[in-house]
Amino acid sequence: MSAPSPVPMVTLSLQQVEDLTFAALVASGLSLDNAHSVTASVVAAEAEGVHSHGLARLPTYCAHASVGKIDGKALPTLTRPRPGLVRVDAADGFAHPAIDIGLPALFEAARTQGIAALAVTNSYNCGVVGYHVERIAKAGLMALGFVNAPASIAPMGGTKPVFGTNPIAFAVPQAGADPLVLDQSSSVIAKSEIVVHDQRGEAIPLGWALDKDGAPTTDPKAALAGGTMVPSGGHKGAGMALIVEMFAAWLTGANLSIDASSFADNAGGSPRTGQFFIAIDPGPLAGPEAGARLAHLFAAITGQEGARLPGMRRAAARVRTAREGVSIPKALAAKLEALAG
Amino acid sequence: MSAPSPVPMVTLSLQQVEDLTFAALVASGLSLDNAHSVTASVVAAEAEGVHSHGLARLPTYCAHASVGKIDGKALPTLTRPRPGLVRVDAADGFAHPAIDIGLPALFEAARTQGIAALAVTNSYNCGVVGYHVERIAKAGLMALGFVNAPASIAPMGGTKPVFGTNPIAFAVPQAGADPLVLDQSSSVIAKSEIVVHDQRGEAIPLGWALDKDGAPTTDPKAALAGGTMVPSGGHKGAGMALIVEMFAAWLTGANLSIDASSFADNAGGSPRTGQFFIAIDPGPLAGPEAGARLAHLFAAITGQEGARLPGMRRAAARVRTAREGVSIPKALAAKLEALAG
Repeated sequence: MSAPSPVPMVTLSLQQVEDLTFAALVASGLSLDNAHSVTASVVAAEAEGVHSHGLARLPTYCAHASVGKIDGKALPTLTRPRPGLVRVDAADGFAHPAIDIGLPALFEAARTQGIAALAVTNSYNCGVVGYHVERIAKAGLMALGFVNAPASIAPMGGTKPVFGTNPIAFAVPQAGADPLVLDQSSSVIAKSEIVVHDQRGEAIPLGWALDKDGAPTTDPKAALAGGTMVPSGGHKGAGMALIVEMFAAWLTGANLSIDASSFADNAGGSPRTGQFFIAIDPGPLAGPEAGARLAHLFAAITGQEGARLPGMRRAAARVRTAREGVSIPKALAAKLEALAG
Repeated sequence: MSAPSPVPMVTLSLQQVEDLTFAALVASGLSLDNAHSVTASVVAAEAEGVHSHGLARLPTYCAHASVGKIDGKALPTLTRPRPGLVRVDAADGFAHPAIDIGLPALFEAARTQGIAALAVTNSYNCGVVGYHVERIAKAGLMALGFVNAPASIAPMGGTKPVFGTNPIAFAVPQAGADPLVLDQSSSVIAKSEIVVHDQRGEAIPLGWALDKDGAPTTDPKAALAGGTMVPSGGHKGAGMALIVEMFAAWLTGANLSIDASSFADNAGGSPRTGQFFIAIDPGPLAGPEAGARLAHLFAAITGQEGARLPGMRRAAARVRTAREGVSIPKALAAKLEALAG
């Protein structure tokens, strides 16, 4: 059912992606600090081939800032309620600047306490979660990230959405190499992939989504109009979504997924979703052989015909996009150029 | 293919389960402390209807202590490498006494630091992981648990086992009710369920396991003889198994799943697997409305026709087994009575 894209495409260098993104965000009312934080995440997503969290989402970011659904000039505030806890209130603004001010405090706390957490509340879509946990791993710490989103997955045995696609992400530092990063939603596929298929006029594969009556569908519009996302592995995906919900939404004091306004339209005010990150200093626990043991584990995977470590595709995309740039629909490029003015 | 059990059964009260378990463990050479710790876990598993981690596994526990594969008289040792980290070396003994001495230190650290972790290394099968995270939640803390096991899941794209069935477990305290507990393996089904089907001479459903050539099988013996467990949700289950491996095995300094000796036979010396628990005090983050928000989330689930919260079946089993006792194969009961002497 999935046909090749009928949409004319255009190629942009990563520098052009950065310039276009920054200009569009500032023109939509973001403060320079906020625009820098969001731009870095959009460029990283495009560089890694995750278009759905890159430029494909940018018009929505701009619209939400323009209409005031989120505050593009928000000043996030940081508190330290316990030695191991960092709390950042995103103040109805973008998630990225809130995470940016939280990370240095998280790093310091994790190194001192051995383990620490960063809870971000009253926030918004943070883009690719893997991007944020990778930054924690680049500071030498092992990281786990939880993110909630407006409800689109039904609970075990149910039909009505209760959880967001609620991704979990993991990263671990590797000596002499980029961190290993794993980032997976609780659904079979990230909801943003459905949005991209819709934008490109493509059908979605069966098994990704259900329509509003709970029937399997290949129509992205039917999936997005009151449908639900299929949880990965059935009840275990719904279970994972519940765990993520408890950390990202309940524990941070953010809106539950059932109460969050849409990430896709301009209605309902600030979504006020949450993010939760755990950082651990592996040094005191993993022992002097930690590096050799990590290499031993990864070799048992990469030594198998056909097997691969998570993140290999993204690493390959980084090399490719640095050289060749990225390809996006011509209509999207025109829309972004109009936004950038 | 799954036929009704042809095996004659016998009923035991939970008190009989406890007495029989304790006697069998002590007769197999366990110290009284170790026997108490392991017995509590076996009784809890039987009470919750998780027979595969209860009496079905007890003959193996006894055999491993008798032949010295694990040290039934081990004295676990506790260190505090950082304010937020508790490390317990199980010293080639059972996991249960190691977790038992680690939990009070974990509780104290989590309350003081806001977040803390317990890393158990040089350990062994810990039974139902949910049992341990539930104890953390009963202390008023939110908990996450990771456990590794001898390799039986292939990595993404591969065919040879690298990860254990590597469960993750979660628990959160509820005012006026038992904690909500979620406990799920990274495979479609826990490996112990295959062992139980084998013991009872029953076929396993298609989709649970692959034989040694990677072909789907309904024969539990083919699954156990060099086969692999199917990961839940395909590559996402393999991804979850990798995350769990990193916490439970790599971070704790325990044996990786590829290096751990079998939990099922007497060969290969101590498995030296690991467990990792994270405990968080929700008080400073979740806010004054935390209880109402939890009830609101759970009501959105239980209010749906057919939907249920995790742990409902186990809660129902507790009521039933307290009244009616548990039903186990007569041959197993005879074997345990012989072990108990």
